[in-house]
Amino acid sequence: MTQTILLDLLEKKEFKAIRAVLNVMNPVDLAALLKDLPAPDLAMAFRLIDKERAAETFSYMDPDQQEALLNIFTNAEIKDILAEMYTDDTVDLLEDMPANVVNRILDNLDRDTRRVINTILRYPEDSAGSIMTTEYVDLRPNMTVSDALQKIRRVGIDKETIYTCYVTQSGKLIGVVTAKDLLTSDSDRKISDLMETNILAVSTNEDKEQVAEMFNKYGVIALPVVDSEFCIVGIVTFDDAFEVLTDEATEDIAKMAAVTPNDTPYLKTGVFSLFAARIPWLLLLMISATVTGWIITSFEKALAASVALTAFIPMLMDTGGNSGSQASVTVIRALSLGQIQFSDFFRVMRKELFVSLLCGLTLAVANFFKIWLVDISLLHTSGLTLSIAAVVCLTLAVTVVIAKFIGCTLPILAKKVGFDPAVMASPFITTIVDAISLVVYFNFASAMLGI
Amino acid sequence: MTQTILLDLLEKKEFKAIRAVLNVMNPVDLAALLKDLPAPDLAMAFRLIDKERAAETFSYMDPDQQEALLNIFTNAEIKDILAEMYTDDTVDLLEDMPANVVNRILDNLDRDTRRVINTILRYPEDSAGSIMTTEYVDLRPNMTVSDALQKIRRVGIDKETIYTCYVTQSGKLIGVVTAKDLLTSDSDRKISDLMETNILAVSTNEDKEQVAEMFNKYGVIALPVVDSEFCIVGIVTFDDAFEVLTDEATEDIAKMAAVTPNDTPYLKTGVFSLFAARIPWLLLLMISATVTGWIITSFEKALAASVALTAFIPMLMDTGGNSGSQASVTVIRALSLGQIQFSDFFRVMRKELFVSLLCGLTLAVANFFKIWLVDISLLHTSGLTLSIAAVVCLTLAVTVVIAKFIGCTLPILAKKVGFDPAVMASPFITTIVDAISLVVYFNFASAMLGI
Repeated sequence: MTQTILLDLLEKKEFKAIRAVLNVMNPVDLAALLKDLPAPDLAMAFRLIDKERAAETFSYMDPDQQEALLNIFTNAEIKDILAEMYTDDTVDLLEDMPANVVNRILDNLDRDTRRVINTILRYPEDSAGSIMTTEYVDLRPNMTVSDALQKIRRVGIDKETIYTCYVTQSGKLIGVVTAKDLLTSDSDRKISDLMETNILAVSTNEDKEQVAEMFNKYGVIALPVVDSEFCIVGIVTFDDAFEVLTDEATEDIAKMAAVTPNDTPYLKTGVFSLFAARIPWLLLLMISATVTGWIITSFEKALAASVALTAFIPMLMDTGGNSGSQASVTVIRALSLGQIQFSDFFRVMRKELFVSLLCGLTLAVANFFKIWLVDISLLHTSGLTLSIAAVVCLTLAVTVVIAKFIGCTLPILAKKVGFDPAVMASPFITTIVDAISLVVYFNFASAMLGI
Repeated sequence: MTQTILLDLLEKKEFKAIRAVLNVMNPVDLAALLKDLPAPDLAMAFRLIDKERAAETFSYMDPDQQEALLNIFTNAEIKDILAEMYTDDTVDLLEDMPANVVNRILDNLDRDTRRVINTILRYPEDSAGSIMTTEYVDLRPNMTVSDALQKIRRVGIDKETIYTCYVTQSGKLIGVVTAKDLLTSDSDRKISDLMETNILAVSTNEDKEQVAEMFNKYGVIALPVVDSEFCIVGIVTFDDAFEVLTDEATEDIAKMAAVTPNDTPYLKTGVFSLFAARIPWLLLLMISATVTGWIITSFEKALAASVALTAFIPMLMDTGGNSGSQASVTVIRALSLGQIQFSDFFRVMRKELFVSLLCGLTLAVANFFKIWLVDISLLHTSGLTLSIAAVVCLTLAVTVVIAKFIGCTLPILAKKVGFDPAVMASPFITTIVDAISLVVYFNFASAMLGI
């Protein structure tokens, strides 16, 4: 079904046909189908979807569409949807809606859910507590497998996942048992015999990126969230961890390009938000580049003597910047994947030293032959001599080594002092390396060319 | 348990204690504990782990440790481990081992598994077929819920996931039923009444990144892999999709920094591999930067007349490069998350045009005041005039607009013609923008300063 067909059928009031089609569709696809539909059509189509599917579809919609629907819905309709939604989705919804809609939502929640949601909203942003849901199956250690299966049958339909069940005793989490264990064990076995007591759990205040990394590391479907007493207060499921991991990579990539990260998809981000996310960094980097200007001014004499020297400035700066970026971005990613720690500092430095020597030498030799054979012999570039070529290539080699050194050390040091290493990527490294490469260049020029 | 304690206990032959501790540990943590242990100790400790846990631990180990163990193991031991491993892990193992070890593994596989694995190995690298596993539960449509639960109880223990079961009829996949449906439905209901027939599936040749994106989009635990006849040949589970997503982000990040991506963790990558992944790009970009040299040489006269002009070259190049990178990296990530398509080309261009005008104007104004108040009034930089400031700031504004235009269009165009958009990031954009900014600069200088 395409949007055009849907709109056509809506206009012809073919509600039976629409209902038949919509109610076999996956909620994710439904949300995509209804995307950008005008509010009245949206509401009309949405009302044709079965309750449970509708609630799930609703939680996959963009905030502006959710808002449009909530503004059209009666209180009874809002109640119905909220009753079918998981708490983590309701929390997401509340965080995205304007104040008046938030009040309507809160008014239509039953008292228990409202209390639970208020607790979740108090957890720090980006904490495990803020992304958890409270619908999970809890079991008692003295239950048998068949008791447990019966409980799942009774309450399971409203739980976000029943595949990991949590065994509690006076609120404390004492074990975990999977649906697989339950389904493949004898029905009279005790849960306490079956449960895994070496529990993977996260605390409510754990950073959500750490939580996502645990999913990645252990390949689990859900993780319990516990308070300081090891009482279970909720669970995080793998689909939310997936989202956190993707968002995290997006944020790192943005920071590496000197852009303030932003949750909104590109096409939904306004021009001013994009501007605001970029201009501070551009200004900061532009002002930092003033230093390179001073360096050039202070070597005015050398440059006036030979424009040939000036011609190599961009190439030297770019190559230095690229070399540094390669090292820094590689190290930043390895840090964020937990592949290197601060204790690896010297191993990383030694490795990058060898790599940079190889790169620097290769580039210098290649460039020397290029200048000699192309620029001098073939093009007869005026004022260009083999001594200038030597200065350029020596600078190149030294710059590459320094650039890779700075590129690999800054992110590790940044992380050590609690800074975000991702910021120490191309733009910053480039600015620093530019200044250094110019100083190296002019000093070699003065020494070797006597200017 | 730490490695030191483990080695100590091994030396004291406290096997009972070691066995007790190891057999409550999570296989992921076990693999981490055994990491980098000398081969004889590794084998000794490994032999104390229970069969099933040992096999899982084995699949989480680094290839060099797996190889060490396989070289020590008897054929009987290898058979035991392989019998407990899922086919996707066995395939990974075969891909990582040298030829002689591969032969020993193949010799110790039972005939059916060997046949299955040979089929998987024939699927293209990076395809869904190459990452799938063949251990899944299949049901028949005429079974009842209790038949299905019985089947799961019988065969489930050897299946990678039992939480999604596949309903087949003469090999064809006709429906999907979740363990949750089975557990929460009446035991005499027919599977055919219960199953979801609107099936999410991937074909064997589907790119694994597309498969991972489907997990991300639909939040499912597993996806069936089907052949051209819609017969199910295997499943991909969410933990493998997790890995693909992380690897994909790592690859994109590497490409954005002009590094050839590489699967090996940083500290395990040799100096020559790092060198080989970086030097081709550095050489290519260095040679491309030759163009900027020519541009400078051709404006020799203007530069000789005023070193003040030269002093602004690095700042102009850097700011242009940074502006372009911001746009390109933002667009590359949005492309890879599926947030923008080729059809959004003009929307993206219009958005970036407005953003770049705002950025360009802000930077130009800020820079003009900085040159006027600091460089001229305060520092009395020789040869620097307000007309030069005007040339610099006009160039800045124009360069930023051009840079963002190039930055946002190149990745989209690259994707359209089947290139990897991630390559169109900072390094390439910078090289192109450098040349353009110099041409703009010198032309403004000639026109406005009459040189």
